[in-house]
Amino acid sequence: MRELTDRLLEGLPAAAVVVDPDVTAGYRQDMAGFCASGEPAVVVFPSTVDQVRHVLRTATELRVPVVPQGARTGLSGGANAVEGCIVLSLVAMDRILELDPVNRIAVVEPGVVNAVLSRAAEEHGLAYPPDPSSWESCTIGGNIGTGAGGLCCVKYGVTSEYVLGLDVVLADGRLLHTGRRTAKGVAGYDLTRLFVGSEGTLGVVVGATLALRPAPAPQLALAAEFADVDAACAAVCAVIEAGFTPSLMELMDSVVVGAVNRLGRMGLPESTRALLMVAFDGPEQRRELAEVGQLCKRAGATEVVPADDQAESELLLKARRLALTAMDTLGTTMVDDVAVPRSRMAQMLAGVAEIGERCGLTIGVVSHAGDGNTHPIVAFDADDPEQVRRAEESFEEIMALGLRLGGTITGEHGVGLLKKEWLAQELGPVGLDLQKQMKGLFDPLGILNPGKLF
Amino acid sequence: MRELTDRLLEGLPAAAVVVDPDVTAGYRQDMAGFCASGEPAVVVFPSTVDQVRHVLRTATELRVPVVPQGARTGLSGGANAVEGCIVLSLVAMDRILELDPVNRIAVVEPGVVNAVLSRAAEEHGLAYPPDPSSWESCTIGGNIGTGAGGLCCVKYGVTSEYVLGLDVVLADGRLLHTGRRTAKGVAGYDLTRLFVGSEGTLGVVVGATLALRPAPAPQLALAAEFADVDAACAAVCAVIEAGFTPSLMELMDSVVVGAVNRLGRMGLPESTRALLMVAFDGPEQRRELAEVGQLCKRAGATEVVPADDQAESELLLKARRLALTAMDTLGTTMVDDVAVPRSRMAQMLAGVAEIGERCGLTIGVVSHAGDGNTHPIVAFDADDPEQVRRAEESFEEIMALGLRLGGTITGEHGVGLLKKEWLAQELGPVGLDLQKQMKGLFDPLGILNPGKLF
Ligand SMILES: Cc1cc2nc3c(=O)[nH]c(=O)nc-3n(C[C@H](O)[C@H](O)[C@H](O)COP(=O)(O)OP(=O)(O)OC[C@H]3O[C@@H](n4cnc5c(N)ncnc54)[C@H](O)[C@@H]3O)c2cc1C
Ligand SMILES: Cc1cc2nc3c(=O)[nH]c(=O)nc-3n(C[C@H](O)[C@H](O)[C@H](O)COP(=O)(O)OP(=O)(O)OC[C@H]3O[C@@H](n4cnc5c(N)ncnc54)[C@H](O)[C@@H]3O)c2cc1C
Repeated sequence: MRELTDRLLEGLPAAAVVVDPDVTAGYRQDMAGFCASGEPAVVVFPSTVDQVRHVLRTATELRVPVVPQGARTGLSGGANAVEGCIVLSLVAMDRILELDPVNRIAVVEPGVVNAVLSRAAEEHGLAYPPDPSSWESCTIGGNIGTGAGGLCCVKYGVTSEYVLGLDVVLADGRLLHTGRRTAKGVAGYDLTRLFVGSEGTLGVVVGATLALRPAPAPQLALAAEFADVDAACAAVCAVIEAGFTPSLMELMDSVVVGAVNRLGRMGLPESTRALLMVAFDGPEQRRELAEVGQLCKRAGATEVVPADDQAESELLLKARRLALTAMDTLGTTMVDDVAVPRSRMAQMLAGVAEIGERCGLTIGVVSHAGDGNTHPIVAFDADDPEQVRRAEESFEEIMALGLRLGGTITGEHGVGLLKKEWLAQELGPVGLDLQKQMKGLFDPLGILNPGKLF
Repeated sequence: MRELTDRLLEGLPAAAVVVDPDVTAGYRQDMAGFCASGEPAVVVFPSTVDQVRHVLRTATELRVPVVPQGARTGLSGGANAVEGCIVLSLVAMDRILELDPVNRIAVVEPGVVNAVLSRAAEEHGLAYPPDPSSWESCTIGGNIGTGAGGLCCVKYGVTSEYVLGLDVVLADGRLLHTGRRTAKGVAGYDLTRLFVGSEGTLGVVVGATLALRPAPAPQLALAAEFADVDAACAAVCAVIEAGFTPSLMELMDSVVVGAVNRLGRMGLPESTRALLMVAFDGPEQRRELAEVGQLCKRAGATEVVPADDQAESELLLKARRLALTAMDTLGTTMVDDVAVPRSRMAQMLAGVAEIGERCGLTIGVVSHAGDGNTHPIVAFDADDPEQVRRAEESFEEIMALGLRLGGTITGEHGVGLLKKEWLAQELGPVGLDLQKQMKGLFDPLGILNPGKLF
């Protein structure tokens, strides 16, 4: 331990090496429940690539595990410390190095906060689309680590679509450059995408070249109320089948609607069992909204409220923004992240409701409906071991259900610690074997974020 | 050899195993020049996944190299046979298994021709965007093998953006499923994208789940004539910087313009040294076209011709479609594929002109200008060894120039045999080392498309 900090201090300023247990305890875990964490031996805050390389070289020599961390907003335990590890926080590497409107790229350090990049891009009339709801605090490094999605991904795609190239410090301290600054390129294997979503298990991202897009126009939204969630899911399918591509398409089930209605005093009628929000940001948004409103009615919407302007849109979307907070009023919550083919979403939601009933727990579901990405939120009393047990059980059943419906255990949050038992099932034996071999290739000593994913 | 065919026939129908040297000679090579090829021992045409697995198992047992082939329209020698190999042609596996408008996916076998899928998608109001100019003959398996691009990629992206999941037969005959059918998913490492662009060196694609999009409206194009190519490149940058995203943005330099003018009797004035084509397919295409026309004039266009309707657009784009054929009238041609950051394209084109002069050869450049993806086309007399030598030399110099300008040696055609000496330079030692290890992991015996990439 003494040796570890001494060696770290050979390449890092004293202020960047923290061993005070009161402080380091604050870096034990991310925002996921149900996940174990250990006590870090030390938390380091490098501010240069060379310092990160020094950390990894030291870790390799001394065989100490390293856990990369961004803002620790993760929801899978992927950033949780393991006992005696070096927590490698990238938050001090937070510079936007380039923002280039002609080539539509940004070159950033990993600790840049998503919203900071988004605002900087906006000043040039550009946008960095991936917009996790945690965007005001999560980092680009963490977004790359998890392959983050968000609300606008139904139209604009997820993180992996926007990462052109990476600088990565490998487990042994070598520096790898992947990818490119050009719009296109196919020279060699796509290592860039291999790192996106690898949850800090293959290397430490110390720089990223990201693609930007022209900033879209402000979106115009509608809210559609439904007396049952099946009808809302049918509306989602009808809208997509008709060829629309909304800039946002979110669905809240009756539990979430109830919680939001109470907390936000939204005045929704008791009969509303599902609320669908659809927005468009293109030049024909008014026509599109009107047509989608018709499709919703045809699918059984009891009420369709289109916004007249941006301010009204914001009001409508407020209900969605309140969803997590509202669910938190019902108990300790656990957010799941199963994605299914869009056409199976109705079955997924019916199945989750059934699981909630069977386990005697409240489970509300808010979904990135356009992508079939559901977030079942299990509410329970964390002080009641029996409820905790049932919450965990329901969580497992939800994943099993998602897989049965041809889905994936995680649409955007990642596997981390939370879902590693299930990863094997999703990948199958051949896939799992290859993935483990891949891990062994990049990290033969197993020091990089050990215990995550597998 | 006898043993090889006997073993193959244990799992393949006789008609699918071809050893007649007159026939097999036809499967020696793709469309690239300058590339060596060997005599295949046998060409097989499996029609099921199990037959492909049998071929790979046999190859592993007997240590015979396997070269996967689609339509052999490749431009890098990636599909060229090596002496004594099994050529594994996937063209008989050409079924579209699913086309699902609600989930916007297609599930296809690898031998499906790009245009066949595109037309099938069209019938559902959908599109499979990647549109290499060879789309009438190239296969989806080959497109995945090379990571193909095309004309519309400036707006819609390249092949890797549309591959959601793959079925892959590994070198030892095991069947791997990667990815998913859902719009989003981050469970484990992204092996799907690792296979895209891997040029048949990691496994044989036997099935693909592809994302589709709503079919765009027909595009409306303009042609802008410039007295020099620098001004045309400046126009490209100005258009992108102003926030436009055209559905097509192609640039022909003076050599290509001259050749096309002669062949197609286009009647362009002698003073036209560059021709830029820009198209839009959105609801505001007329306004966008008008504004882009203004930007072109401001950048120095001598003439801007906007199309009034789709028929006129097609006429304007005819010049682009003639480019390769027109260059073929100047001699044997070699198509390069260097991509640079958009802002460096003027330097790239000036450099290529200078290389042509120095080597005493005609080099015309047609570019996917919106992506900075240039195709310098070297024309030479294949019967004159001295010209062949200089053509090869110019080809090398073009790649060196591309790398100096921060670009990549290949934007969409792949490395194959043609560019393997240069791959090492682009990747650097750490990248190259990891890529070779990756190859070793998937293909420890080195039987899969040996000699390609590295
Ligand atoms: C309220 C709330 C809303 C959320 N909404 C969304 C949403 O809409 N969509 C979504 O996708 N997620 C969402 N999340 C989850 C979370 O915000 C994302 O996973 C985010 O990408 C994590 O970023 P972070 O900086 O907090 O990373 P961390 O949580 O610190 O780390 C995440 C993972 O990335 C690794 N990592 C971090 N930095 C690096 C690096 N530089 N190099 C290598 N590995 C690294 C870590 O080891 C860990 O495995 C939400 C979370 C909260 C709390
Ligand atoms: C006139 C012309 C225009 C062209 N225009 C373009 C263009 O605009 N954009 C562009 O990107 N390319 C273009 N190309 C190049 C070529 O068409 C593409 O590279 C195409 O993707 C090759 O497809 P194919 O079926 O012919 O594959 P092949 O040439 O047979 O094979 C290409 C590579 O993929 C591998 N492969 C093939 N099938 C499989 C499989 N099932 N599993 C694993 N590996 C496999 C092969 O081993 C080889 O390495 C053009 C070519 C020509 C002749």
